[in-house]
Amino acid sequence: MNSKYNVIKFIKNKFEKIDDLVSIEEPLEISIKFKDHNEWVTNSLSITMRTPGHDADLVRGFLFNEQIIQDLNEIENIESLGEKVGQYKIQNKILITLNNSKNINISKIKRDFLTNSSCGVCGKSSLDALEIIKKDKTFKTEPILTKEIITRSPLVLRQNQSEFSKTGGIHASGLFSSDGKLISLREDVGRHNALDKMIGNALNNNQIEPKNQFVTCSGRLNFELVQKVLMTNIGLMIGVGAPTSLAIDLANRFDMTLIGFVKGDSFNVYTNNQKVIVN
Amino acid sequence: MNSKYNVIKFIKNKFEKIDDLVSIEEPLEISIKFKDHNEWVTNSLSITMRTPGHDADLVRGFLFNEQIIQDLNEIENIESLGEKVGQYKIQNKILITLNNSKNINISKIKRDFLTNSSCGVCGKSSLDALEIIKKDKTFKTEPILTKEIITRSPLVLRQNQSEFSKTGGIHASGLFSSDGKLISLREDVGRHNALDKMIGNALNNNQIEPKNQFVTCSGRLNFELVQKVLMTNIGLMIGVGAPTSLAIDLANRFDMTLIGFVKGDSFNVYTNNQKVIVN
Repeated sequence: MNSKYNVIKFIKNKFEKIDDLVSIEEPLEISIKFKDHNEWVTNSLSITMRTPGHDADLVRGFLFNEQIIQDLNEIENIESLGEKVGQYKIQNKILITLNNSKNINISKIKRDFLTNSSCGVCGKSSLDALEIIKKDKTFKTEPILTKEIITRSPLVLRQNQSEFSKTGGIHASGLFSSDGKLISLREDVGRHNALDKMIGNALNNNQIEPKNQFVTCSGRLNFELVQKVLMTNIGLMIGVGAPTSLAIDLANRFDMTLIGFVKGDSFNVYTNNQKVIVN
Repeated sequence: MNSKYNVIKFIKNKFEKIDDLVSIEEPLEISIKFKDHNEWVTNSLSITMRTPGHDADLVRGFLFNEQIIQDLNEIENIESLGEKVGQYKIQNKILITLNNSKNINISKIKRDFLTNSSCGVCGKSSLDALEIIKKDKTFKTEPILTKEIITRSPLVLRQNQSEFSKTGGIHASGLFSSDGKLISLREDVGRHNALDKMIGNALNNNQIEPKNQFVTCSGRLNFELVQKVLMTNIGLMIGVGAPTSLAIDLANRFDMTLIGFVKGDSFNVYTNNQKVIVN
């Protein structure tokens, strides 16, 4: 499932307006209903950020792979629930009713998944619950970057990674000043960890000055990564790979400039198109 | 942080034994200690699979980005805990003590993070707790693949992806028969979701026959992905990108053949080197 977004593409030394297809990312809350000592119990298991479609396959695989069930026959029913929300009008809840089989690993469910009753996610509409930022942030102060600084930043990131050249299997996040200098860099096999480490390091060294800085991440950009950068008040973010729909929507909502698909001398500007910040 | 692994590399039409550097992936349990109504409370917040190193930066960024704290001054102390475990002798617990500041968002912690007291992860050594598979699986029956089937499978995956060619930003997992035919394919912005969807679909259609099948995933291979494939009893897994240390260790432990870094006509065999299964 994908959606069309208006994008400004920089390629062959000029800017073009294009329609770009973006993979959709939307939250799905997975709940199960099962019989425990003759009483029916419904509990939220997990929220995952998924591309809508084949949701029933997703929960079948999830329950089996987590060994909550040993066999698909233990599933009585799978039902999509909740109001259709968001710009794609998608139901973001799914309820799996398990039959009364003795095989269901109730102790495992209780041990690994059940959060306490004050769980704040269940029952809320997805974005409200997942979004940490409540303030109305606007980035009137994002830096002006040259095209060269944008296209060079992934290269600078990679050149300064101590691990990537060795293993080829590690993500990086970098904090840059608007003149393209690398201020802080951290690596991790998890891209969210690389970003947490980099922001934690920069905060600890009092290095964050949103007006004059931007963040570049290896790989693709999703909701979670954009949200982490928004927390720092930095208003410009670059990803080497493609962003998801929710990454773009969140950046748009908070007036952040999101740039992706930086390859050689080309890149896409996904948000703030009307005030392209590039000289 | 990385480690050397013995790998059999297929390149330029022959096999070579090489030492390959692999990025380390190890679990970290993040706990916080804070004062709630004059009582000190310690709770586990999250377990993350991270590359060891800069763990203090990681938790600083995590607490700030999740808005459990608004300022690093709210952190009194950060302490690595737990016995040094695993082959890298790493402490896999970290405790952050928050000071008695009024700013600490205790209601948010309670709402979003606190699991009930029967949480099965806390207090266990990492791998024991995270590993779902308890049976002693061995894959005496993994299929024999030709080199061409291995190098072609990522191509077949990509050619059959309906979304990748459009958005360039979506992961895929495919179930293949040993003669290279694609049996089931699913896509998602989350690679774990793509694999859950594919396995859920194949289970639902009774398509899983471990003796004659293998799984190919786009992107890198981590602990979670290998574990999901192990659940199906399929003993051969291919990744387009690099595996983490824990992905290799887990595959080794269950005698699964793990192949990675498939690029053009070359690939690396990370496990089961002694009985290379490739004709």
